[in-house]
Amino acid sequence: MRRLSTTDSDFDPALEQLLAWDLVSDHQVRQRVDDIIQDVRQRGDLAVLDYTARFDRWSPACAADLRIPHARLAAAWEQIPGAQRDALEQAAARIRHYAERQKLADWSFTEADGTVLGQQVSPLDRVGLYVPGGKAAYPSSVLMNAVPAKVAGVGELIMVVPTPAGELNDLVLAAAHVVGVDQAFAVGGAQAVAALAYGTETIPAVDKIVGPGNIYVATAKRAVFGQVGIDMVAGPSEILIICDGKTDPDWIAMDLFSQAEHDEDAQSILVSWDADYLDRVAASVERLLPTLEREAIIATALRQRGALILAQDLDDAIAVANRVAPEHLELSVAQPESILRQIRHAGAIFMGRYTAEAIGDYCAGPNHVLPTSRTARFSSPLGVYDFQKRSSLIMASPAGAARLGQTASVLARGEGLTAHARSAEYRGEVG
Amino acid sequence: MRRLSTTDSDFDPALEQLLAWDLVSDHQVRQRVDDIIQDVRQRGDLAVLDYTARFDRWSPACAADLRIPHARLAAAWEQIPGAQRDALEQAAARIRHYAERQKLADWSFTEADGTVLGQQVSPLDRVGLYVPGGKAAYPSSVLMNAVPAKVAGVGELIMVVPTPAGELNDLVLAAAHVVGVDQAFAVGGAQAVAALAYGTETIPAVDKIVGPGNIYVATAKRAVFGQVGIDMVAGPSEILIICDGKTDPDWIAMDLFSQAEHDEDAQSILVSWDADYLDRVAASVERLLPTLEREAIIATALRQRGALILAQDLDDAIAVANRVAPEHLELSVAQPESILRQIRHAGAIFMGRYTAEAIGDYCAGPNHVLPTSRTARFSSPLGVYDFQKRSSLIMASPAGAARLGQTASVLARGEGLTAHARSAEYRGEVG
Repeated sequence: MRRLSTTDSDFDPALEQLLAWDLVSDHQVRQRVDDIIQDVRQRGDLAVLDYTARFDRWSPACAADLRIPHARLAAAWEQIPGAQRDALEQAAARIRHYAERQKLADWSFTEADGTVLGQQVSPLDRVGLYVPGGKAAYPSSVLMNAVPAKVAGVGELIMVVPTPAGELNDLVLAAAHVVGVDQAFAVGGAQAVAALAYGTETIPAVDKIVGPGNIYVATAKRAVFGQVGIDMVAGPSEILIICDGKTDPDWIAMDLFSQAEHDEDAQSILVSWDADYLDRVAASVERLLPTLEREAIIATALRQRGALILAQDLDDAIAVANRVAPEHLELSVAQPESILRQIRHAGAIFMGRYTAEAIGDYCAGPNHVLPTSRTARFSSPLGVYDFQKRSSLIMASPAGAARLGQTASVLARGEGLTAHARSAEYRGEVG
Repeated sequence: MRRLSTTDSDFDPALEQLLAWDLVSDHQVRQRVDDIIQDVRQRGDLAVLDYTARFDRWSPACAADLRIPHARLAAAWEQIPGAQRDALEQAAARIRHYAERQKLADWSFTEADGTVLGQQVSPLDRVGLYVPGGKAAYPSSVLMNAVPAKVAGVGELIMVVPTPAGELNDLVLAAAHVVGVDQAFAVGGAQAVAALAYGTETIPAVDKIVGPGNIYVATAKRAVFGQVGIDMVAGPSEILIICDGKTDPDWIAMDLFSQAEHDEDAQSILVSWDADYLDRVAASVERLLPTLEREAIIATALRQRGALILAQDLDDAIAVANRVAPEHLELSVAQPESILRQIRHAGAIFMGRYTAEAIGDYCAGPNHVLPTSRTARFSSPLGVYDFQKRSSLIMASPAGAARLGQTASVLARGEGLTAHARSAEYRGEVG
């Protein structure tokens, strides 16, 4: 793993280079995705069937075959081992419990003249959940995306999942069963996103699409943004660990690995002001790496995008974390709560030596869908609030209409919008 | 204005056609915008100066000339009439008062085993505010975008405003003064969005860009989404009015006009179950139209995109509103509060005969930046929450780490992510 020090003369550009990741897709990918979307808009099911045959290497006879029936989800639930059923149920319950705290509520207040102002909250009618298939088939992702939607009260949850060569992942289907997905379809890629955004004869149009996917899925989501809502454009997963040098270096090495094992682009960074400790973690990495199932992926990720950073002190380490705005931030220090308010940007904060990121990934309760690639500067974990929306409420009393109408009239006339002014003035004349 | 009836055999397609608006920009516009963004990323200030000379028809001598100094904003504040100063101050105060209610707060809870879960809320560091120039220079837009950012506690608010032929609008500058914009630049178009997203030598990079703009601005915002946050992709402004036939038809006609006067694409729709009333409003439209300053724009908008819709009854009218998911919904009926919960999708709801949309546009308090083009199905008015973000908090006790680690381990191994499993298991061994 590369070593950096915040006192290096070239630390700033070196850090920028380490973090560089362009969330914007290249022109060629965009063009291909645009073509697929246009085709699905025009030909509906037929286009979806064509792309499924081409990209997923299986050929459903007709669009109805794309549907994964409820019975299939229930069968998967019965087939998986009991320990997995228990774990899925416990995780879903904890995610639900945390999500309940996030629900937005209506509010209103009445002014002295009787004018009422407020906000009404409603759930989305219908949401599409994209679940990756193949290598990266993650049941935890089904829980994390579906549970907050259900807690929000979304009317209908439509899952799509690609089935490379027709293969379905029982753990994913079992997770869909336990969260109560309403409809499921064996379709993926940009064609699935297009179908959810515009609807086909078989796949219903939704109001928002959430869930992770490859570059084609991400590009398609960006392209249909506006027609439907989307959750976020996700880059590779990342962790930044701040450690005071007192946590077992094997633990920290394994935390770095747990991030790096996602894929070769994943990013693992450790920051400490104890140079000896960085050496000890490096030794643990060296020693433990060969014991890991996903050694090759981890080695590549650590080499390409990992780093051990020597800071001057705790404050300097926090400054690095705020510049990185990491998806996952571990504060493996003695009194993590005392520095919490200094953390300005992070998707999720794992506090103390006992809080491995992995428990947050699966079952602690908070969502594992988090802003990546420094987008924690402006965005939040996925939550119930992403499946609710607000409507402003205004009910002017006659007196309020007269009073507010005067102010509105002055500003409207200042903008040259005289119909606005007259519309406000009408109410004032009788109010 | 066109007349539709919900009982027409072709009502559904006719409504779809009436509402049709593609928020996705065409290929040519996207290509031009991409080129501008690339150029600004590479050449910084020089590119911004070139595009400003080309598109805004004025040639600043150097990038420093793009800056609009604080003194210029203060001078504008002094120059405008006292009535406008009062109106801006009153509007800002009311928008601030409403916005205060929207602030997100930290929360946390402790479980039986000592594990703490929660959420920490932080403001964005730096926000860019795009303000259109020229014909559509709206000081109210400055208030509506800037006040919630300031209430959220955003560190620095950077305003950009194009100055066609070098001309500045004093009312816009005065609004920037009263809300306390931190830096202002005389630059617009895709080049302004690119500069805010990536930064130049003169214009600082921001974390999120908000504010309305033309098709180039909207396309640029979509293109830089991910690098920075954006508010929304806005289409033409719309109103849908539900009236029980008991509101003065002149008032309703003026409300339709106030929407239509924005531009030729603006949409004004009235729904009533009283056919006579639709006739009376049509007569008012006919009679009042020639008295309006923006008659030509309004006539075009009403002809192209306006409609008077005859519903069967109140419930049927509400069903139309929910299908349209309008930006602005006026409930010009006797007991608007009794039907509020039936409204599933609307940006802002104006209740009762006295609540003209115009007072909401300027000074009632709720934001006038609202989801258009049916995006109220999945999005909300601009608010303080758009300038804050959440970080999840997890602090496992040793006992909690052991318990949660078991569940995490089962699920991680089910996904083939064994480093995740081992990272969780390490803590359990001692916990």
